[in-house]
Amino acid sequence: MKILVVGASGTIGSAVVNELGSRHDIIKAGSKSGDVMVDITSSDSIQDMFKKIGSIDAVVCTAGGAHFGPLESLADKEFEIGIRSKLMGQINLVLLGTPSVSDGGSFTVTTGVLAHDPIYCGAAVTTVNGGLEGFVLGASIELPRGIRINAVSPEVLEESMPHIGHFFRGHVPVPAARVALAYSKSVEGRLSGQVFPAV
Amino acid sequence: MKILVVGASGTIGSAVVNELGSRHDIIKAGSKSGDVMVDITSSDSIQDMFKKIGSIDAVVCTAGGAHFGPLESLADKEFEIGIRSKLMGQINLVLLGTPSVSDGGSFTVTTGVLAHDPIYCGAAVTTVNGGLEGFVLGASIELPRGIRINAVSPEVLEESMPHIGHFFRGHVPVPAARVALAYSKSVEGRLSGQVFPAV
Repeated sequence: MKILVVGASGTIGSAVVNELGSRHDIIKAGSKSGDVMVDITSSDSIQDMFKKIGSIDAVVCTAGGAHFGPLESLADKEFEIGIRSKLMGQINLVLLGTPSVSDGGSFTVTTGVLAHDPIYCGAAVTTVNGGLEGFVLGASIELPRGIRINAVSPEVLEESMPHIGHFFRGHVPVPAARVALAYSKSVEGRLSGQVFPAV
Repeated sequence: MKILVVGASGTIGSAVVNELGSRHDIIKAGSKSGDVMVDITSSDSIQDMFKKIGSIDAVVCTAGGAHFGPLESLADKEFEIGIRSKLMGQINLVLLGTPSVSDGGSFTVTTGVLAHDPIYCGAAVTTVNGGLEGFVLGASIELPRGIRINAVSPEVLEESMPHIGHFFRGHVPVPAARVALAYSKSVEGRLSGQVFPAV
């Protein structure tokens, strides 16, 4: 398969490239490095990317951020960050990428454990993850030509524990290499409309 | 209790006013009618409303729309409608209304059956509902002074079947008066961070 990985230089993205790269052709995309550059908060940038790369069999997105902060500090502006990036960025990859994906191909987007297991400072992230999981379910029954869509929901990464571990007390961290297997399940399996926990 | 009902003139809102009005003082809010006017897509309008009404014990929101249409017709603009109204409109009611709600008070917002039971043309609605349910969960662990938050998730209304019933084949419609009971459970109960199905 020819697989586009958006966010390929990140911790999860690199692990996905390692996992899928042994069996498939990978096109790496990122905001700062890769075979092709893309800013997922810009529809124009996403369209340019798909024009450049032509037809593909699968799109994996491990990119997209959201604001982290106490509820009392949140307003429109803070929610907007995640809505533009992790939510609409990934949704626009699907909406604008569908014509480039082959019959029976797939999209795999990234949500996260906070969707259903909230922590202090995570309300905007939990909102965005919930919206994205909704989109995956809603889109799964309308994508054309047998194209599938799933989300992977990683627990906090082992690799991230030195930086954000104090927000995730009691969580069981997971190595990125193990998280990458959930992306393989989505891309190389046959299910659609699912959220695959990577725990 | 003194209860603010936003969207009080709508089908669900009127039923909530009927149900809770026999036991509590209701302040009706709406975009076109009510004791106080509010446009939930505007933070300024929400702040003006809370300034006018002073301290309250509970906020119920049955207002907020989202775009309905085939996946292939959806872009940023269509998602934006629900993000501004049903998602951020209700989130901003909580963020901006918290200082006006008494200790141990509550917020009750409105999601819907499409969050987990998608239909054709509903992808943007399912996205928004998913995001809102995420917010309820995330906010429930951070609201101050024992303030609670829940969502009610109504099935398609009996009252709406003549207009939109053909999109909801196989769903069991529910009368608004029965849906109103779920709001009573949220406002008059003690649970927080829940989604109450109204089926």
